[in-house]
Amino acid sequence: MGWPDQKLDILITGGTLLTMAAPADIIEEPVIGIRDGKILFVESNDLPSGYSPEAHEVIDASGCLVLPGLVNTHTHLPMILFRGLADDLPLMIWLNDHIFPAEERFINRDTVYTASLLAIAEMILSGTTTFCDGYFFESSVARAAIASGIRGVVSQGFIDFPSANKPDLSGHTAAAENFMQKWHKRSPLLTPALICHSSYICSPDTLRAIKAVARGHESLFLIHLAETREEVALLRERYGKKPVHHLLDLDLLDKATVAAHCIWLEEDELDLLAQSGVKVAHNPESNMKLGAGVARVPEMLRLGIEVGLGTDGCASNNNLDLFGEMGMCAKLHKVFSSDPTVMKAEKVVEMATLGGARVLGMADRIGSISPGKCADIILVNMNKPHLTPLYHPFSHLVYAASGADVLTSIIGGQVVMRNRRLLTIDLNEVMDGVRKIGAAISSWNRSSTA
Amino acid sequence: MGWPDQKLDILITGGTLLTMAAPADIIEEPVIGIRDGKILFVESNDLPSGYSPEAHEVIDASGCLVLPGLVNTHTHLPMILFRGLADDLPLMIWLNDHIFPAEERFINRDTVYTASLLAIAEMILSGTTTFCDGYFFESSVARAAIASGIRGVVSQGFIDFPSANKPDLSGHTAAAENFMQKWHKRSPLLTPALICHSSYICSPDTLRAIKAVARGHESLFLIHLAETREEVALLRERYGKKPVHHLLDLDLLDKATVAAHCIWLEEDELDLLAQSGVKVAHNPESNMKLGAGVARVPEMLRLGIEVGLGTDGCASNNNLDLFGEMGMCAKLHKVFSSDPTVMKAEKVVEMATLGGARVLGMADRIGSISPGKCADIILVNMNKPHLTPLYHPFSHLVYAASGADVLTSIIGGQVVMRNRRLLTIDLNEVMDGVRKIGAAISSWNRSSTA
Repeated sequence: MGWPDQKLDILITGGTLLTMAAPADIIEEPVIGIRDGKILFVESNDLPSGYSPEAHEVIDASGCLVLPGLVNTHTHLPMILFRGLADDLPLMIWLNDHIFPAEERFINRDTVYTASLLAIAEMILSGTTTFCDGYFFESSVARAAIASGIRGVVSQGFIDFPSANKPDLSGHTAAAENFMQKWHKRSPLLTPALICHSSYICSPDTLRAIKAVARGHESLFLIHLAETREEVALLRERYGKKPVHHLLDLDLLDKATVAAHCIWLEEDELDLLAQSGVKVAHNPESNMKLGAGVARVPEMLRLGIEVGLGTDGCASNNNLDLFGEMGMCAKLHKVFSSDPTVMKAEKVVEMATLGGARVLGMADRIGSISPGKCADIILVNMNKPHLTPLYHPFSHLVYAASGADVLTSIIGGQVVMRNRRLLTIDLNEVMDGVRKIGAAISSWNRSSTA
Repeated sequence: MGWPDQKLDILITGGTLLTMAAPADIIEEPVIGIRDGKILFVESNDLPSGYSPEAHEVIDASGCLVLPGLVNTHTHLPMILFRGLADDLPLMIWLNDHIFPAEERFINRDTVYTASLLAIAEMILSGTTTFCDGYFFESSVARAAIASGIRGVVSQGFIDFPSANKPDLSGHTAAAENFMQKWHKRSPLLTPALICHSSYICSPDTLRAIKAVARGHESLFLIHLAETREEVALLRERYGKKPVHHLLDLDLLDKATVAAHCIWLEEDELDLLAQSGVKVAHNPESNMKLGAGVARVPEMLRLGIEVGLGTDGCASNNNLDLFGEMGMCAKLHKVFSSDPTVMKAEKVVEMATLGGARVLGMADRIGSISPGKCADIILVNMNKPHLTPLYHPFSHLVYAASGADVLTSIIGGQVVMRNRRLLTIDLNEVMDGVRKIGAAISSWNRSSTA
């Protein structure tokens, strides 16, 4: 970098650090050194000996909470194009009459790129530093991620058309292989993966084929699991099995499988997930808005299942703010179990940081502020009326703050937002681009529903 | 005012107006004239004939939604002092070990005044223009409301100590009378009222006595009703009655009674509320966070009961943002009823505006943007990444926006916030004041729980 050995890239001083390296670990007036994208040291009050206070950038975190960037374990970024296009509808009408036709008409590599840039802007502005996405034209999502400097798992999506008697297995396998090879080690921030939509939209052969490719690359395999009661009924009718048993018999259950939603599962199915090390992406706002149901997260956690938080796509949420998801997760399970002591604030913040990192198999690199880990760090401004007074930092993050309180964000040692100004994305240009696509969708939607 | 007859105080032009005067009534590029605190005209595109475009202040609402200010039907503003002091605890431990002792020690007329100013600042910053509060030292809440120019119902609170054999009836009555007379017509923005905490903390005699004073002044009578299962069990044990029957037998049910929570009610009790015209303040976030339960709001609405939204106090929420409450209300009832079509976005925005006005008996004055009504108007900035694209304004208000998107707020014709800057409250001074009280609470809390 041209700097003398001892000079830091970034030095963060002051504020209150939630390391997330150990439960409820809080360091007041921390001093955090960053070099070459990594966290070099985390100290209290003083620099470690041998380091000079010189740095390319010194960030004063006074009045802020400093914590690991949030991890969104389940997104469909390009669906930001359909944000608020159709709400308050029965699930099947929403999907079949609005979302699927809009996707068929408006989703292509260009619209996916523009939409993903806006989604990434929204995520950075609300404190997310790592996302796990699955959609079509996922290479465009990958390009948008690289262009904006966010860390991401990008998963190419696979479905079988319900009408197809024989899924295009060799085509699926070739497309999956191509995607994995194309994005393998292209950027230190990017991890390619594969997603089969679900076992009711994908045939057993397709599920096996895509999982085989993922295994060959030691990559994540994503799937939607037991999101609705209708899905469970359909699988029982078609295969005579419960959802997790169906996946088990196809040999899809292992530590590299991330299952989203997991709402309508019985005891033995939760046990199977725990035994096999399957990870769960929990999306409370989407599950509520679609009336899908409530995942038994407190029970999953008791069984030792790793659970992360996700926003799902913007058509069913309708934003990408993980702060809202934290608050929702904490409150939903309290009322659903009639127990205000479940899903404590500290635990929920862990799910949104280190827990999410574990779900994505990245806990060795991100999720806590510890020496040697990647420098994915956010500053949350506590100097706000709705965050005053401040007794317990974790409480405020979950119950009072919103994404708009995030001030500064660092990903892999790069400052991507400083004092709420995005540094890697031209926000006005991207918003204009999405508005143009939205205008086309809007006039199509009016004419098709007229 | 010294202006010629035709000159307006405020002229709002542009943007998209949600009048709330009729369901889903939307006017693009509205022109709204305001004089002497009232809405003079609401037109589309052009001024009405005879009016000049001159105004003391012209507000350009381009890119904004213009809608009636939000109505918070249930608050305990001074409890902002206990925001995040104790969370994730069983209800009775939370109340008895934390909130009640903290109230006894730290609640006085000075702390209530300072705390209320901060709460009002937070409400204005998140789009609320009318609140309905109940607490002790309520005259200090009234003073803070007048000082800051917000519209409010301020209700002096009454409880009986559980140990008292005979409640202090004449004392209660005198205090209630004094409060009503003191604040009667003191300010056009202020409406005094009375609140009995609940029928398990107040004796039948106290309930009757306070309601009598309220009736004498044609004022609102507030009460918490059926918030927890424990409350219902206690009333059954003590009086052999269900909660609403107990109130019925005490002659407390009429159109001027506002009952908060109303969670554990049976069919016949909901019917009684509907028949008697009792209004309901629904507080979904508080009910969820305390694990209290889910009020049957869709059923209440079918029965014709007027339901408004409330945040409850900041110790059980933990913020005063009605946008969060709108989103929660829409999503909670969808998942609780397994029906994504209930609590549609338009209905929820109505509950937060005109519906709330009806609950407070103020629908002739506020709740919609109509000629002759008070000029309580907010502008919500849609030019944000998380609000792009924009298909349906109501959807964005409920599912994507947050209080931080409110740009400008007018109450009774006075601009109280312009471009997110508060004009009637010295925010830094008030935050400092609350931080000082918070520091004292913090050290007391540490020593008392050590």
